[in-house]
Amino acid sequence: MSIAAAPGPRVILIKPQLGENIGASARAMLNCGLDDLAIVAPRDVWPNPKAVAMASGAGAVLDRARVVDTLRAATGDLHLLYAATARSRDMIQRVLTPRAAALEMRAAVAAGQRVGVLFGPERSGLTTDDVAEAQAVIAVPLNPEFSSLNLAQAVLLVAYEWYQADAVAVPERFDPGDSPPAAKQGVDYFVDRLERDLDAAGYFPTEEQRPTMRRNLVNLLNRARVTQQELRTLHGVVQHLAASKRREKL
Amino acid sequence: MSIAAAPGPRVILIKPQLGENIGASARAMLNCGLDDLAIVAPRDVWPNPKAVAMASGAGAVLDRARVVDTLRAATGDLHLLYAATARSRDMIQRVLTPRAAALEMRAAVAAGQRVGVLFGPERSGLTTDDVAEAQAVIAVPLNPEFSSLNLAQAVLLVAYEWYQADAVAVPERFDPGDSPPAAKQGVDYFVDRLERDLDAAGYFPTEEQRPTMRRNLVNLLNRARVTQQELRTLHGVVQHLAASKRREKL
Repeated sequence: MSIAAAPGPRVILIKPQLGENIGASARAMLNCGLDDLAIVAPRDVWPNPKAVAMASGAGAVLDRARVVDTLRAATGDLHLLYAATARSRDMIQRVLTPRAAALEMRAAVAAGQRVGVLFGPERSGLTTDDVAEAQAVIAVPLNPEFSSLNLAQAVLLVAYEWYQADAVAVPERFDPGDSPPAAKQGVDYFVDRLERDLDAAGYFPTEEQRPTMRRNLVNLLNRARVTQQELRTLHGVVQHLAASKRREKL
Repeated sequence: MSIAAAPGPRVILIKPQLGENIGASARAMLNCGLDDLAIVAPRDVWPNPKAVAMASGAGAVLDRARVVDTLRAATGDLHLLYAATARSRDMIQRVLTPRAAALEMRAAVAAGQRVGVLFGPERSGLTTDDVAEAQAVIAVPLNPEFSSLNLAQAVLLVAYEWYQADAVAVPERFDPGDSPPAAKQGVDYFVDRLERDLDAAGYFPTEEQRPTMRRNLVNLLNRARVTQQELRTLHGVVQHLAASKRREKL
């Protein structure tokens, strides 16, 4: 199982209650190229079979997880620590979105630092003492009337933004399947043929309307970036629909 | 439970297997201000108590969910439909990241269009026929060696990017000219009509080839985001080409 070359942030789960959430967090981490998991004082016995079941292929992350008794044991070697929490505290804190934090973490890692993110127990979240251990808070901008995230969902969003911040992601690409796009001349040939068949079928009400109607069809085909295979399909469609018309003329 | 004022994308779960995932999807949706859920042919009985338990406060989304038998019943009123899938298909498609798709969806909604995103069953994902119904694919950039997302995690990432997008920087927009895009039901109606005419014209060489040939046509029309005016043009084209065939039969 390959991991991004640069060491990503450590995910630190404090007193997680449900094995399912630990497993789902491991899966979300590996989805985003992360494999450094620390678990502080889990409620249930470790290894946890429910965590393994939910990890669904990311078992290696669980196998390598450090299970420790105290927060300090999980964070001692880190240079930059964030606390993921939605609640505001009676405490001065920088509060970053996951996206802004990801950029900051990328810069820190590039500078040779080690970084991590704290996540609290499902029911109660991080204590204010836990938050005080961090240099900054990560808060996910969400529906203010329903902002409580499942633990593994919170891990996913932080890990996802880390992965996207790599800037290798292309926002849009064009998947041509196995059929190459048609060359312009193929489209032109089809449109000319269609126009002849439509002429024979009495399609164009007036000569004035012909250019517009033709352009609408050309535009539709070009916009779709029609493939060679699709042009063959369209030729077949027109051929069959128009066949009897031609026979009529013979 | 308050929802963002503008109507957000519909989340369409096709044949979901686990109630837990339906509930977690509803929770992720409401976290991101979405409440329009459609469920096509769920495996288990509906309402599903496991979905309610996992929704954890987002039960209102489940209460309002439309449960239908067919994909078409869930998408007929939509103008822009995406398919969330990681697998490449033997089919030409635009492929967008969730972030790019969110900007596009914001622009479409701001223009008064209705949008939706398809998510497939947990085990198998969307079928190629399902993907052909969509105008574009949403693929999440993830660790290429471990890119399989849990269903609710996929819903979360699409919904999260929708919430983060604020329609300021639109990387690409769709200019429908003066003709609004066709609703899905208009495309469906045209394809059904074309298929009947092609049947009458002896187009389909064998019944085995019918689904693929039909899918190629559906995919082409959807990819082009055909407008209402263009559909009228295409109806005219088919009507004229097929006219003599019908006359022959009288």
